[in-house]
Amino acid sequence: MSGFIKVVGLGPGNGALITPQVQAALDLATDIVGYIPYVARVTPRDGLVLHASDNRVELDRAHNALEMARAGKKVVIVSSGDPGVFAMASALFEALEAMPSYQDMAIEILPGITAMLAASAALGAPLGHDFCAINLSDNLKPFALIEKRLRLAAQADFAMAFYNPRSASRPEGFTRVLDILREECSPHQLIMFARNVSRPDQTLLTVNLQEARGEMADMRTLVLLGNSQTRRVGPFVYTPRFSTDGA
Amino acid sequence: MSGFIKVVGLGPGNGALITPQVQAALDLATDIVGYIPYVARVTPRDGLVLHASDNRVELDRAHNALEMARAGKKVVIVSSGDPGVFAMASALFEALEAMPSYQDMAIEILPGITAMLAASAALGAPLGHDFCAINLSDNLKPFALIEKRLRLAAQADFAMAFYNPRSASRPEGFTRVLDILREECSPHQLIMFARNVSRPDQTLLTVNLQEARGEMADMRTLVLLGNSQTRRVGPFVYTPRFSTDGA
Repeated sequence: MSGFIKVVGLGPGNGALITPQVQAALDLATDIVGYIPYVARVTPRDGLVLHASDNRVELDRAHNALEMARAGKKVVIVSSGDPGVFAMASALFEALEAMPSYQDMAIEILPGITAMLAASAALGAPLGHDFCAINLSDNLKPFALIEKRLRLAAQADFAMAFYNPRSASRPEGFTRVLDILREECSPHQLIMFARNVSRPDQTLLTVNLQEARGEMADMRTLVLLGNSQTRRVGPFVYTPRFSTDGA
Repeated sequence: MSGFIKVVGLGPGNGALITPQVQAALDLATDIVGYIPYVARVTPRDGLVLHASDNRVELDRAHNALEMARAGKKVVIVSSGDPGVFAMASALFEALEAMPSYQDMAIEILPGITAMLAASAALGAPLGHDFCAINLSDNLKPFALIEKRLRLAAQADFAMAFYNPRSASRPEGFTRVLDILREECSPHQLIMFARNVSRPDQTLLTVNLQEARGEMADMRTLVLLGNSQTRRVGPFVYTPRFSTDGA
């Protein structure tokens, strides 16, 4: 038996952003495991079994992958973006923690282009100085913790990347996020909405924080907030490398 | 004339982490511009001119690239990792800001695998929850600002990625960083040192914060600090997706 699990990042959508390392893993796989729209990005071929499952069953999916690998399958778990950023790698390790007899399994995580890097590149260089990444999905943590992090990150003058800003089930959450940011930041600070980033239907929108509205984001949108120095140059938005600002 | 500038990320070192999009740009280039060790990673060929320059001349390099593109050259500026994370994209826009007549130039930023994503993948999934990225190079900002950000990020319980932790010219800086983190965090919090990440001579070291010493990092090291929940599972380190911690 020479089963393995590789957890790979497919990048944000454009096939030209899939690394050769990830492509080689896909070419070697016997079984592909993942959320339905990500599995759909893998080209079917003879001998390759596709196991697509719904959202919010990450632990079942990880458990299933471990069982298949134990049985000798070459299992590739696919994530969008990077598997280590709000994606399947942590879910696999959560499952592994509960299954100590599987901890000698051949497991590898292969990085990918996460959405904030593709969005930043499409816009210019808004993440060119210190920044943070916050998952706004509040089924993973209490909103009070999100609020605390937003306020501290604003006080640190980090640029910020927001994943999963808005879902149909809690459309008001992102509006509250904007209200908190407006309390902590300048109304002129730039905020950017990158939807379907790297895909043919990509759209980019940059506004001031005072003009931002909750409806500008949905679950296909990556939101970036500039820091106090972020500005426009020609058609681009960038954050300077230098800061002379003290504490 | 159909000159252009593409600012591309070569990833952290392993050629299998260069995206096909970036490879296509390299194949199309007439001129490659960048820091000596990054230009050395581009395969020479007939018709391709390599312009390698030293560190800390980023603005001259950007100015030169703009002049060549204006003259019709197909210029590719190479960065290690991702060009938008503590790299050449911001330097190019700084140069562009001072040269308004060049702002109609065809400029594109092509993302790459930044070191923290490759380090995180090699270690497991320590960035699986909210995190921040801080450049510790204090020739870009006063140390007081670094200190402020470290304290606020620790209070937010972000996992943290530290770029440029330690240079020969200021070896004591990273020791001060560790002292500040020990004031704000649990002594048992995990800190990870990934040196030459993704290369054949990659080394990984994970210790508790109380055991960490300045000499564990040099300028080829990417340092990751876990959050309060980050833990080991088998040979890996990961941060759970969930947090039940309130504010």
